[in-house]
Amino acid sequence: MAFHEFIQLDKNSPEAMYIQIYNEIKKFIENGSLKPHEKLPAIRNLGSKLSVNNVTIVNAYKMLEQNGLVYSKVGSGTFVKGDDNLSNVEDKENIKKSLTGPKEGTVHENKSEINFATLTPDPVYFPVQEFKEAMNEVLDRDGGYAFAYQEAKGYYPLRESLRDYIINRKVNTDIEDIHIISGAQQGIDIVSKALINFNDTIVVESPTYTGALAAFRSRGANIIEVPIISGGMDLELLEEALKKYSPKLIYVMTSFQNPTGISYSDEKKQGLLFLAKKYNTYILEDDYLPELKFSGKETYPVKAIDTEDRVIYLKSFSKIFMPGIRLGFLAVPKSLTSNIMSAKHTSDISTSSLMQRTFDLYIRKKKWQGHIERMSKIYKNKYDITIKALREVTPFIEFDNPEGGIHIYCKSDMDSLMLGSIIKQRGASVVPGRVFYLDNREDTHFRLSFAAVEDDKIEEGIKIIRNAYMDLKNLNSGNLFPYL
Amino acid sequence: MAFHEFIQLDKNSPEAMYIQIYNEIKKFIENGSLKPHEKLPAIRNLGSKLSVNNVTIVNAYKMLEQNGLVYSKVGSGTFVKGDDNLSNVEDKENIKKSLTGPKEGTVHENKSEINFATLTPDPVYFPVQEFKEAMNEVLDRDGGYAFAYQEAKGYYPLRESLRDYIINRKVNTDIEDIHIISGAQQGIDIVSKALINFNDTIVVESPTYTGALAAFRSRGANIIEVPIISGGMDLELLEEALKKYSPKLIYVMTSFQNPTGISYSDEKKQGLLFLAKKYNTYILEDDYLPELKFSGKETYPVKAIDTEDRVIYLKSFSKIFMPGIRLGFLAVPKSLTSNIMSAKHTSDISTSSLMQRTFDLYIRKKKWQGHIERMSKIYKNKYDITIKALREVTPFIEFDNPEGGIHIYCKSDMDSLMLGSIIKQRGASVVPGRVFYLDNREDTHFRLSFAAVEDDKIEEGIKIIRNAYMDLKNLNSGNLFPYL
Repeated sequence: MAFHEFIQLDKNSPEAMYIQIYNEIKKFIENGSLKPHEKLPAIRNLGSKLSVNNVTIVNAYKMLEQNGLVYSKVGSGTFVKGDDNLSNVEDKENIKKSLTGPKEGTVHENKSEINFATLTPDPVYFPVQEFKEAMNEVLDRDGGYAFAYQEAKGYYPLRESLRDYIINRKVNTDIEDIHIISGAQQGIDIVSKALINFNDTIVVESPTYTGALAAFRSRGANIIEVPIISGGMDLELLEEALKKYSPKLIYVMTSFQNPTGISYSDEKKQGLLFLAKKYNTYILEDDYLPELKFSGKETYPVKAIDTEDRVIYLKSFSKIFMPGIRLGFLAVPKSLTSNIMSAKHTSDISTSSLMQRTFDLYIRKKKWQGHIERMSKIYKNKYDITIKALREVTPFIEFDNPEGGIHIYCKSDMDSLMLGSIIKQRGASVVPGRVFYLDNREDTHFRLSFAAVEDDKIEEGIKIIRNAYMDLKNLNSGNLFPYL
Repeated sequence: MAFHEFIQLDKNSPEAMYIQIYNEIKKFIENGSLKPHEKLPAIRNLGSKLSVNNVTIVNAYKMLEQNGLVYSKVGSGTFVKGDDNLSNVEDKENIKKSLTGPKEGTVHENKSEINFATLTPDPVYFPVQEFKEAMNEVLDRDGGYAFAYQEAKGYYPLRESLRDYIINRKVNTDIEDIHIISGAQQGIDIVSKALINFNDTIVVESPTYTGALAAFRSRGANIIEVPIISGGMDLELLEEALKKYSPKLIYVMTSFQNPTGISYSDEKKQGLLFLAKKYNTYILEDDYLPELKFSGKETYPVKAIDTEDRVIYLKSFSKIFMPGIRLGFLAVPKSLTSNIMSAKHTSDISTSSLMQRTFDLYIRKKKWQGHIERMSKIYKNKYDITIKALREVTPFIEFDNPEGGIHIYCKSDMDSLMLGSIIKQRGASVVPGRVFYLDNREDTHFRLSFAAVEDDKIEEGIKIIRNAYMDLKNLNSGNLFPYL
């Protein structure tokens, strides 16, 4: 029997035709009737066989692709994914790049590649069942009220849970100073709205998270980059900048900084706070992934030693949980509370009430801690494999291993945009260092994250990087043999 | 047996103590053991009887209040709500006011009042069961992928559903021009980010939605108010403004405008579009509540006749569904797509994937249309009662009845801030007209919404308004008898 004859459609069902087709094909992939890398029928062909519009087939295939079940190759068709590449993570850096610069939009994304670019965890690790139970319990408990507007600062019990949670980070804050937000990016955007007006100056680490640069730029801010060196920002250069520009804000990531992986030393944290006070400015501290600490002694954020109410503390749950929950929080100095509330309200009034209530119950049922521990083990294993594999490619590619986190900042002696492009052609991806600078300057670093790469693909991926490096090196030295 | 002896607590349960107390008291309210308006034990008293911290009791009571089960009176304690006032809606206008001006923060909110200020529907109308089923189906279908990042524009199938949905509004748009957003406020904020830079000019209707003014102001825009008259904006004054200031954007609500309730005539819509083209600017059209059309012939948005790609179409689902789902969409001119994507990404990367998928399934199962029809009947009934009750207080209070929507713009000959304050003291609330102007100028209008007021409280509420008016009138004329 031909493939299309297995597909059962019900034209009277309320379900859209393309969803029915999606579900049928999904079933065949899951029960093994369709094998990994098997080609799906051509769109026109299947459309005419099933007597549906071609657009319907396109949509069904698109949905299969979005859900990580198939991949497409331009010009050759749509194929069933293998176990080796069942991953649907969207590449946050890639979206950003496609939006902010011409350099990256040109590279076509291949869903079957070994993706060292994304920082988003593999959806398979999301605790769907536990989360679903919590959500149903909330709906049974609160009914329609689960969808009412919250207090502007967020659902009170969740703020309470988070206040208790950050005591682990030695941060003592008042429930009234906690503001629930829809993820870290919104946190940065809201702080920008609350503090930065046109032509104000702010200071960032260099290199830094591109999403933060975009938010600051969107406010018309003058952005001053201060290099990050061993143990944190270069405080001498920071002081010069503070003296010269009187910035409104210093944006820092004190643990496993993105992209460098550097964590701040205690001295740097003290120094940073001292300077913020001396020059009367605020610190926006993005407490990025401290939960994933694999070696060395425990460290705490600047906020933990902030006796002067200088630090706006930002925490997202995307990187360890799942980005789709869109939740994070700010713990802010009392003097900023009303500005922050107003900026949040102007942005989107409030964060999804159902998500807030569900996450609160999830924490209260002690599920959250368990999830962090599970993810920590999973990531630690990936981290070990990555470090081991990278050691084998030194000295071509150098790196300092951070004491945790989900990415390594690597350096070669080649421009990383060129290198990244060749890596891409060979079926893997990394993020070239230049996207982390304001002027996209030429750079030989690249960021390699193992967050979404399966354990047994890490070594293969790093070999691709090594080979790409060797090829580029040979190409540059005029020696095309033996790599090209 | 004393009250506290009925409360069963389990100190070994993972559930927080205050949630257990909340659940116990909720049970007693729901099964009638606690009667409407019965006083709950004093906090200290119950705390010591149950051997828990007073803060725990405060939290439990606070949660009961947040969930609309009890109300508190300053100085006298906490009381069980009656059936007459089971409503927990947060007052959006009040939040806004408490953030943007000193005039309103001073008025203390009373949860048992007859709330004509809020535009948010009563949570009891939310179709919890249907929504829960759709959500569980999505979680079973998509697993962890339901929490992955979406495409920047939003979940493709939902964009498809919405494309089909707005064909009802005679809007034909490409799926690729639809962008999912987290509610109308975010839509306005994102359009502002995409189009407005410091010192750019934009035009708004006067009076207009305060949240829009806040978003435009936050971008450092110069805001020009053009009066709304019968049938829409005053086009002569609009043309003068366009000629003089070359604004980037004209922000309009063409159906049941907030706050005036005015809908645009066909001529005004044509004229608006003509001027936007002539002066090379964009229209941001907030298609506010056209679903609630109770009389007169069907009308369509400006977007429906937009052959020149001048209209950014904005649609939220908060007012007819529930604000807590935080969903809406933009249908934008092709020339703006990449700017809008970038602004959305900078704001919060993407809207909750689970909510997008759930709402999509909800639409595809044809539940959404049924919900609109139910809500339309409920609101039509409230509308009729409101109009009838208001007719009895003319000519003291005048109004034009709109052909639909959820609010009436009323006018007296008294300053509405004074009037609103007296109404508040008497146990009801309205929104004084001055909050809808840039300069909060003195105004004799007020907005009266029946969205969250129970049918049998509407007449009582309008009597309160009438009596407040008469008292103020007498007070102003020096005659204190017989009202004070």
